[in-house]
Amino acid sequence: MDILITHVSVVTMDENLTVLTDAFLGVKDGKIAYLAKTAPDGAEKPKKIIDGTGMVVMPGLINCHTHLPMSILRSVSDDCNLNDWLHGLWEKEARLDDRAVKASTLLGIMECLRFGVTSVSDMYDHVDAIAEAVAQSGIKANLARGTTMFLGEEFDDRTFPACKELREVTRKWNGYDDGRIKIEASIHGEYTSTSNFWDFAARFAQEEELGMHIHLSETSGEQEGSLERNGLTPAQALDCHRVFDGRTIAAHCVHLTEEDMQLLGKRKVTAVHCPVSNLKLASGRADVIAMVQHGMNVALGTDSSCSNNNLDLFEELKLTALQAKELHGDASKLTAAAALMMATTCGARAQGRENECGMLKVGMDADLCMLDFTQPHLIPCHDLMSHLVYAASGHDVVLTMVRGKILYAAGAYPTIDREALMKELMEYAIPKVMTPEEKEETNG
Amino acid sequence: MDILITHVSVVTMDENLTVLTDAFLGVKDGKIAYLAKTAPDGAEKPKKIIDGTGMVVMPGLINCHTHLPMSILRSVSDDCNLNDWLHGLWEKEARLDDRAVKASTLLGIMECLRFGVTSVSDMYDHVDAIAEAVAQSGIKANLARGTTMFLGEEFDDRTFPACKELREVTRKWNGYDDGRIKIEASIHGEYTSTSNFWDFAARFAQEEELGMHIHLSETSGEQEGSLERNGLTPAQALDCHRVFDGRTIAAHCVHLTEEDMQLLGKRKVTAVHCPVSNLKLASGRADVIAMVQHGMNVALGTDSSCSNNNLDLFEELKLTALQAKELHGDASKLTAAAALMMATTCGARAQGRENECGMLKVGMDADLCMLDFTQPHLIPCHDLMSHLVYAASGHDVVLTMVRGKILYAAGAYPTIDREALMKELMEYAIPKVMTPEEKEETNG
Repeated sequence: MDILITHVSVVTMDENLTVLTDAFLGVKDGKIAYLAKTAPDGAEKPKKIIDGTGMVVMPGLINCHTHLPMSILRSVSDDCNLNDWLHGLWEKEARLDDRAVKASTLLGIMECLRFGVTSVSDMYDHVDAIAEAVAQSGIKANLARGTTMFLGEEFDDRTFPACKELREVTRKWNGYDDGRIKIEASIHGEYTSTSNFWDFAARFAQEEELGMHIHLSETSGEQEGSLERNGLTPAQALDCHRVFDGRTIAAHCVHLTEEDMQLLGKRKVTAVHCPVSNLKLASGRADVIAMVQHGMNVALGTDSSCSNNNLDLFEELKLTALQAKELHGDASKLTAAAALMMATTCGARAQGRENECGMLKVGMDADLCMLDFTQPHLIPCHDLMSHLVYAASGHDVVLTMVRGKILYAAGAYPTIDREALMKELMEYAIPKVMTPEEKEETNG
Repeated sequence: MDILITHVSVVTMDENLTVLTDAFLGVKDGKIAYLAKTAPDGAEKPKKIIDGTGMVVMPGLINCHTHLPMSILRSVSDDCNLNDWLHGLWEKEARLDDRAVKASTLLGIMECLRFGVTSVSDMYDHVDAIAEAVAQSGIKANLARGTTMFLGEEFDDRTFPACKELREVTRKWNGYDDGRIKIEASIHGEYTSTSNFWDFAARFAQEEELGMHIHLSETSGEQEGSLERNGLTPAQALDCHRVFDGRTIAAHCVHLTEEDMQLLGKRKVTAVHCPVSNLKLASGRADVIAMVQHGMNVALGTDSSCSNNNLDLFEELKLTALQAKELHGDASKLTAAAALMMATTCGARAQGRENECGMLKVGMDADLCMLDFTQPHLIPCHDLMSHLVYAASGHDVVLTMVRGKILYAAGAYPTIDREALMKELMEYAIPKVMTPEEKEETNG
């Protein structure tokens, strides 16, 4: 056995939502090899023992919608309306290059690991640079090349740069490290591309057996615009082009109609609920209970650091449960257990990883995080799941492990040279996106 | 000078919302004695120097509505409707005694200090025990004896136990330690007491020059019930009995009518916004922007650990800004600065402490917290106020000071014997409220 965590409480998120107290969890060759209330027999001495007294272990959280490279733009464009927000960002994003993207992605990954996230679904460009950061860090990632175009633009997939990039990164990175990285096809949104691109993306996903990652029905404007342009909702319009035929992540889903939910339920689409971002940009409140009732899978996402402004998915976990209660006028709706499923097992399903992670069970990858439950705000603990959702924070995570490898522990990131990264950010990446005048202006 | 914090960023929350970077903040005799971009001259050597490099100092947060002794009941009654929630709690609360209340209050205070809160407005019974905990800890507190009665009950303030207790704690604790503790009169709510008690409470507050702390219009049921009982909204009914004549804190204010807001604005009442609690109990969403527009003061509160389930007011700070944006369909509404004012200067005003704390300024009490801004989720920092509201957490607080005395620093609580308190909680207070069968049942 490589690692044995002793005397620990375990929220397994398995089919029976089993919770074990004073238990033992063993890791071998990247997998969970032992999980029981009694210590393993002495036949094989573990190489490393972690005392789990007062600690809680749960599956690593899965952040199913984010844009990691935007970490570098955290707080440059707040408290303004959506148009000003986008405008403020696009100008700076245009200045990003591969080197700055890699540094900023590593910063975002540090934050994920620090908050117990073991797998992300990312949408951005410069995917090759993002994949390099993911490869180095040890985190799992489904990477999508978010593609926009001018609506009048001529489109030929043989020459269109984003299609070229998608083909290249698929060849280079899809399946990397035994599937730790997956490449996904992507349509940024109905309102930012044309149907001949949707046809290409759907076909490419089918041919290469890739998942699909899109933004869907984030704002009422998007919904109305599609009705005007297509006579159909965004979900209906994209469905006509077979975009949902494979495994699909649809981020936001704030303004779906009843018919949209029926359609997407039938197509087994995952809605990625991003409640913090949806409030911050005044987009609205998605009805996750209705989506589940219509057969959709619901997972959670932070969106980028520009509309949040952090990647602590525990915030989404709490707000998801709280908001659903208020939206339905019933405090018994969306229990702590249901919210936890969205952040773990449902996330794994969204990523096509349900057979490898999302729950703690012998044979699954050892993708997990451990939280310190000895702090004042977690005392007493009458209910472990309640505490994880309503009282805990990503800041309570003291250890994060992917495939049995410790990627974060007590402030340290074994796969990331923190000092070198900070230097790269301060000396190269930040000056690249922010002119000195801009920095002066925003820094008070 | 007693303490000098060097090279620190300071979010002062003064009238001009001044933000200083690389500044120096000096403390002497419990007050802020120095605050400037340049170091003080060498005339008087500080007794203690704190390196503020990479740190941000802001006024201590003010939690204007909580029930500290309920920390012991954290997570005993979650994911159920309001009636089941109350029933589940009342039974256990009835078992509390002074000794258990004191221990549980100290636990709550530890949590406040850990999350940068320097002053609280509490409502509960066993006020003498609460005051003892507050006195020991060094935190500031306005303590109200929340009073309920059976609506048919005979009332004579000379014999009614809660009135007796209020008189005693006022005599014993009001003004304690140069005003660190204030006692306040209190009506739990319109729906839990009768008008002859309201008359007593209003008169007593006026005679003793006390503030008033009530629950107001938390649920639609409360609003409708009052219209049935009184032909008036709760605000109108209480106003007829002069409850708002003095400085008043009205917690929740979720279902105020336009007329209510006008009335309460005229009376200069403070609404204490508790957005996490209001969502968790499915009570609704208060419109803080409308309240401010009607001249009301708006401060923030966590409510108790049973409807939250923590006392990290940074969560309310963020949710207040987010929710107001969505409620008004405009992402530019309720800026980070406005939310910060609610948690600091508006809170100080609510407590009658506006001349002593809530902003960092020479001559004010040194009530402050310091946050570590060198962590991944706070890098880069293009806007300090944005970061405090949208990216930071109470967990980022590394030091909390009240009247120049360090009450929390890097995991240590100088005024609280943590080990003894944990023993008291585990061996006395928790067994007091939870039977072994109940603990077994809830602990999974």
